[in-house]
Amino acid sequence: MVQAMTGKLTVIGLGPGNADQLTREADVALQTADVIFGYQPYIDRVPLRAGQRREASDNRQEVDRASRALSEAARGAHAAVVSGGDPGVFAMAAAVCEALEHGPAAWRDLELSIVPGVTSMLAVAARVGAPLGHDFCAMSLSDNLKPWSVIERRLQAAAAAGFVMALYNPISRARPWQLDRAFETLREHLPGTTVVVFGRAVGRPDERIQLTTLAAAKGAEADMATCIIVGSTETRILTRPNQPTLVYTPRSLAAASA
Amino acid sequence: MVQAMTGKLTVIGLGPGNADQLTREADVALQTADVIFGYQPYIDRVPLRAGQRREASDNRQEVDRASRALSEAARGAHAAVVSGGDPGVFAMAAAVCEALEHGPAAWRDLELSIVPGVTSMLAVAARVGAPLGHDFCAMSLSDNLKPWSVIERRLQAAAAAGFVMALYNPISRARPWQLDRAFETLREHLPGTTVVVFGRAVGRPDERIQLTTLAAAKGAEADMATCIIVGSTETRILTRPNQPTLVYTPRSLAAASA
Repeated sequence: MVQAMTGKLTVIGLGPGNADQLTREADVALQTADVIFGYQPYIDRVPLRAGQRREASDNRQEVDRASRALSEAARGAHAAVVSGGDPGVFAMAAAVCEALEHGPAAWRDLELSIVPGVTSMLAVAARVGAPLGHDFCAMSLSDNLKPWSVIERRLQAAAAAGFVMALYNPISRARPWQLDRAFETLREHLPGTTVVVFGRAVGRPDERIQLTTLAAAKGAEADMATCIIVGSTETRILTRPNQPTLVYTPRSLAAASA
Repeated sequence: MVQAMTGKLTVIGLGPGNADQLTREADVALQTADVIFGYQPYIDRVPLRAGQRREASDNRQEVDRASRALSEAARGAHAAVVSGGDPGVFAMAAAVCEALEHGPAAWRDLELSIVPGVTSMLAVAARVGAPLGHDFCAMSLSDNLKPWSVIERRLQAAAAAGFVMALYNPISRARPWQLDRAFETLREHLPGTTVVVFGRAVGRPDERIQLTTLAAAKGAEADMATCIIVGSTETRILTRPNQPTLVYTPRSLAAASA
């Protein structure tokens, strides 16, 4: 009983993929956990430590994983759940809250901390300039979690309102057509010249950044590790003869373009 | 001439305010800069190092500051510009791109790197649970940079489309009424019970987190250091007898609520 009161759960953001993009707070939290839960590729990024247990699980099992971690914390462990990027953006922090709300009442007494991280869109944006320098939105394209009609409606609303968009979970083997459909929808509301950035595995050895236009954008260029940024009509391309091209959205919107 | 080619500019995100929320990459970049430019309160957060120059400037002088940093880099220095949070979100990365586009052609040859950081909304979200766990948008409420009519239109569009909203730059001495007007606008589109989070100075000694509802939200609760998160109709409040209240937006949206 006394032991159970000392358990706690920390949800940790690992950042985009490079160990140098981890915060010190996340690093310390990883070092002090007794047991770490996560999707296998994220677990693989955490250095092994003596006496620490690790439990990897599959991509789709977020609420099961959260429940396992809460159970361990309820038994007195310092449990950690890891997420790539930031755990609060389409990731484990919400899954832990869901499991906590629907689980045993005792779980509500657990100490829960969430350690934020650099989420994917920020890392992709930093690689190309400042496409998120003006108002923007972040959407998951996964229709496992909401009806496709809602996704289309949000894409239309975001384009019409002038938001730059960051698209998470753009494509997977089970969701092969959604991203191309999203580009089609956006082409009805934005000029074909609108800038599109595909940012894959930023900070990792297999990083790949591609700049294209909405007219030319193809879903096949993306995979599960890709975050896509679609500019607004204000987003600018700045070519440089001896340096990489920059993409940025000016902070100011002139009254004339409103 | 040879010296000029070695100059470079790094734009660095300091995270929300606590030194532990800095990434290792940002820490190394700060250590290797010859000269650091920034808004005074951000410069104050960077430890002084021997041989390093620092140039603090006022809040409104972003493009001047960016131009000064680019000039120093063009003279061969390793210049750095610091931003609180992430430099790509309503901050210095876009200002540097703007200065670079409109400045001397030689500036385009400079090596420019941007080091992302944990932006304010992620830190605020982590403190209360996972309010950004579903689709969301981020808006600056400053009408110095765009007409107020555009801000209102975007608030309406975001509310109607079901986005959670993170509001940056909510209020200042020169912009005293805008935040209350924004709440009024949102009250026309969202129920009064909608969750609102005021997150001030997260990670700093004067941190203050307040949970309220849209019906009760008052602009006077915010200041320049506050980031506000307005939930969607899906955002949930989870009270816990012996622990802080959690706020989260479930990852799933059922077809019935669409």
